Amino acid sequence: MDGELRTQLMKAIDRNLERSLSELSELVGQPSISSQGVGMDAAAELVADLLRRHDLSSRLIETPSYPVVYGEWKGGRPGSLVLYNHYDVQPADPLDLWNSPPFEVTRVDGKLVGRGIADDKGHIISRLAALDAVREVLGDLPCTVKLMIEGGEEISSPHIPEFVQEHRDLLAADACIWETGGVDFSGRPVITLGMRGICYLQYDVRTMSRDAHSGMAHLLPNAAWRLVQALGTLKDPEGHIAVEGFFDDALKPTERDLQLISELPNADEDMYASYGISEFINGLSGDAAERAVYSPTANIAGFSSGYQGAGAKTVIPSSAMAKMDFRLIPDQDPEDIYRKVCSHLEREGFGDVEVTYLGGERAAATDPDEPWVRLAIETAREVYGKEPIVWPMIGGSGPMHPFRHTLGVPIVTSGVGDPETLIHAPNENIRIENFVLGTLHTALLVARYAQGRAAAT
Amino acid sequence: MDGELRTQLMKAIDRNLERSLSELSELVGQPSISSQGVGMDAAAELVADLLRRHDLSSRLIETPSYPVVYGEWKGGRPGSLVLYNHYDVQPADPLDLWNSPPFEVTRVDGKLVGRGIADDKGHIISRLAALDAVREVLGDLPCTVKLMIEGGEEISSPHIPEFVQEHRDLLAADACIWETGGVDFSGRPVITLGMRGICYLQYDVRTMSRDAHSGMAHLLPNAAWRLVQALGTLKDPEGHIAVEGFFDDALKPTERDLQLISELPNADEDMYASYGISEFINGLSGDAAERAVYSPTANIAGFSSGYQGAGAKTVIPSSAMAKMDFRLIPDQDPEDIYRKVCSHLEREGFGDVEVTYLGGERAAATDPDEPWVRLAIETAREVYGKEPIVWPMIGGSGPMHPFRHTLGVPIVTSGVGDPETLIHAPNENIRIENFVLGTLHTALLVARYAQGRAAAT
Repeated sequence: MDGELRTQLMKAIDRNLERSLSELSELVGQPSISSQGVGMDAAAELVADLLRRHDLSSRLIETPSYPVVYGEWKGGRPGSLVLYNHYDVQPADPLDLWNSPPFEVTRVDGKLVGRGIADDKGHIISRLAALDAVREVLGDLPCTVKLMIEGGEEISSPHIPEFVQEHRDLLAADACIWETGGVDFSGRPVITLGMRGICYLQYDVRTMSRDAHSGMAHLLPNAAWRLVQALGTLKDPEGHIAVEGFFDDALKPTERDLQLISELPNADEDMYASYGISEFINGLSGDAAERAVYSPTANIAGFSSGYQGAGAKTVIPSSAMAKMDFRLIPDQDPEDIYRKVCSHLEREGFGDVEVTYLGGERAAATDPDEPWVRLAIETAREVYGKEPIVWPMIGGSGPMHPFRHTLGVPIVTSGVGDPETLIHAPNENIRIENFVLGTLHTALLVARYAQGRAAAT
Repeated sequence: MDGELRTQLMKAIDRNLERSLSELSELVGQPSISSQGVGMDAAAELVADLLRRHDLSSRLIETPSYPVVYGEWKGGRPGSLVLYNHYDVQPADPLDLWNSPPFEVTRVDGKLVGRGIADDKGHIISRLAALDAVREVLGDLPCTVKLMIEGGEEISSPHIPEFVQEHRDLLAADACIWETGGVDFSGRPVITLGMRGICYLQYDVRTMSRDAHSGMAHLLPNAAWRLVQALGTLKDPEGHIAVEGFFDDALKPTERDLQLISELPNADEDMYASYGISEFINGLSGDAAERAVYSPTANIAGFSSGYQGAGAKTVIPSSAMAKMDFRLIPDQDPEDIYRKVCSHLEREGFGDVEVTYLGGERAAATDPDEPWVRLAIETAREVYGKEPIVWPMIGGSGPMHPFRHTLGVPIVTSGVGDPETLIHAPNENIRIENFVLGTLHTALLVARYAQGRAAAT
């Protein structure tokens, strides 16, 4: 291994670090909440501008929802990589649990805190810092690098499958670096090869034209009760999803997947400490807990009905709302799951529950024996000095499916996170040291890929 | 019947009407939300002051929660009445559904709109107007009238049983006029003789120290699911309350109760129209719907967990909260019900659900054949020119139990409401014509009682 390359890249990243962190503050300072349509156009423009500041060509490409920022570094030689990221973030609420303003980067010890700093704005800035470092150290970046930075990841990337299909020539590449990644609780680098799919639904019940005094509860229909009972039918008493046909298209993991899972370090105790719990659900632990990523989930993400203030209010709620995300595995189809949930509720006598499809995407994974995966593992080992952890599939979701199946690229992650980044939650953060290491990993991966292509031609 | 007395009282009420409505605006304008502790002391002072403006002696009597306003008119002869009312109101939310500011009286057509105007501030002002009218027309009010106006009715009158016990000599009377009442959909006067009890509980679940990304839903415990499943055990699939021992102390209605129920006009269609529904729950209608007031209820008054905003947020809620009021019948004891719900949840494996007792009171009713009830019916028939409807028990609750069982007084209602007053809901209102008629009924009832006592001595 050329340890000198790693050292030089590290020095370049360090030299540019204050600029990177300043750009990160600028980007986090621009809210971009896709689910609420807050700040999206301004954020897209800012990202396109950041790309240009780093000598990439960039432009916005419209979609039926938010624009995709497309940026490109045109290499002089064959070979190209596509990098997937997103500029949208989760809503900041509950606001009262933040220790600092969510849309402002606050430095606390070695951490930077702000909404979207880990998911995924830290990765956008890290990619730009990595490309800078490669060009500074190699004097040139001979391969082409394509950045596709979308605005709808947090709402299940509604138009990305069609977008990738339509722009498959523009996005064509040999391999792909995905958002997310970083280190585990012990500092070992984590590389992810697959993501679950998702089907996000909202349930609404309206039982009356207005709320009523609860003294009439022996006669008038309570929307909260209807929704509690309707949700109750979605799982059996043991907690298994009870929607007819839900598992029809669910594939079992391969032997190779299960082998990789069995090699994962046991993180149970770290997870317990991180979430303040004493056990996982369903008595899972160890390998069984890790294998459970191949079990689809039905998660109540929110429930709202009636009086939620202090003390007592005696009211029969006339409306109730719940949100639910199902995490899916190959080959479950989110729109099919949506239809099956509707049929299930109808059959169980809850045809009055209105179900709205808020978005979905399919699961996808890359073969762990791809050369691109091996290169990502080798470079991670070199950067972090620890044996990488390879997840054949993680619990979260992203639009990997069109990249894997339309573009046909193998996908690895390279990232700046850790298990305590609190993504999607108050006080989302990254550690500056992990920003540096993640950037170095991306830079080394890109540099080695470019050198390999150059040597091959 | 002395129709002249009614005519004279009516003229006096009309003469004073603008003053009454102006006082009503003043009282509604002072928020007094007992469940949130908003404006309570100022409201108590204002009520005491209003009583003095009408020549009653008045003072605040402290309780462990909010003060009781006690007012008295000292008659020169034996005989005394006690009038029960309350100065606290329900919270105004959901605020966005109000068409005018809740704590400001707005006049729309023949209606006055504002929080608490029907429940119960309209009644407080109506009582004062009625007493004024009696004194003006009779030249004197020979019996004693005691006003007990409490501040915790909307939080289940936490200390009223002890208060009545402690002040039983002060409050001693021959009979009682209770808050609420008015007319039904067809304009017939309604007299209520009994109220259900209540047990108000809050359920809280915390499964983790913080919310988590829903990609971990195959491992991490979801508080919303826990609470949905816990609540689900409280009713069986047919919707009947499934808490062991819940019905142990529940008495059946008497034959006389059921006879009165069978004489009630069928209001099903009016209720359907009022709430925009096509049927009641459990297939109830007609007599069966009216008899259902003797069925205790378990009402979800509110449910809150996780993300409740627009669009999608993929989070595992670490906490969930629900509020529930049980309406009770004689002889159920709210504290006993609380203990039984706790035991039930424990037994069903939901010992992690924290249950908080927010308040309770016992059901109580007056014998329909009491002379005081007959007098209330006769005077209502005279005032409204229609046959009164007598409810032996209504679905709502109030602290009738200590009045019936500690003071031993027979109780009737006399009031200014109608079925469209929207109490506890946005745009709470009264009709001015019903204010006048309800005030006239109270005045005639008091005057006839005083004349009867004077004749007897």
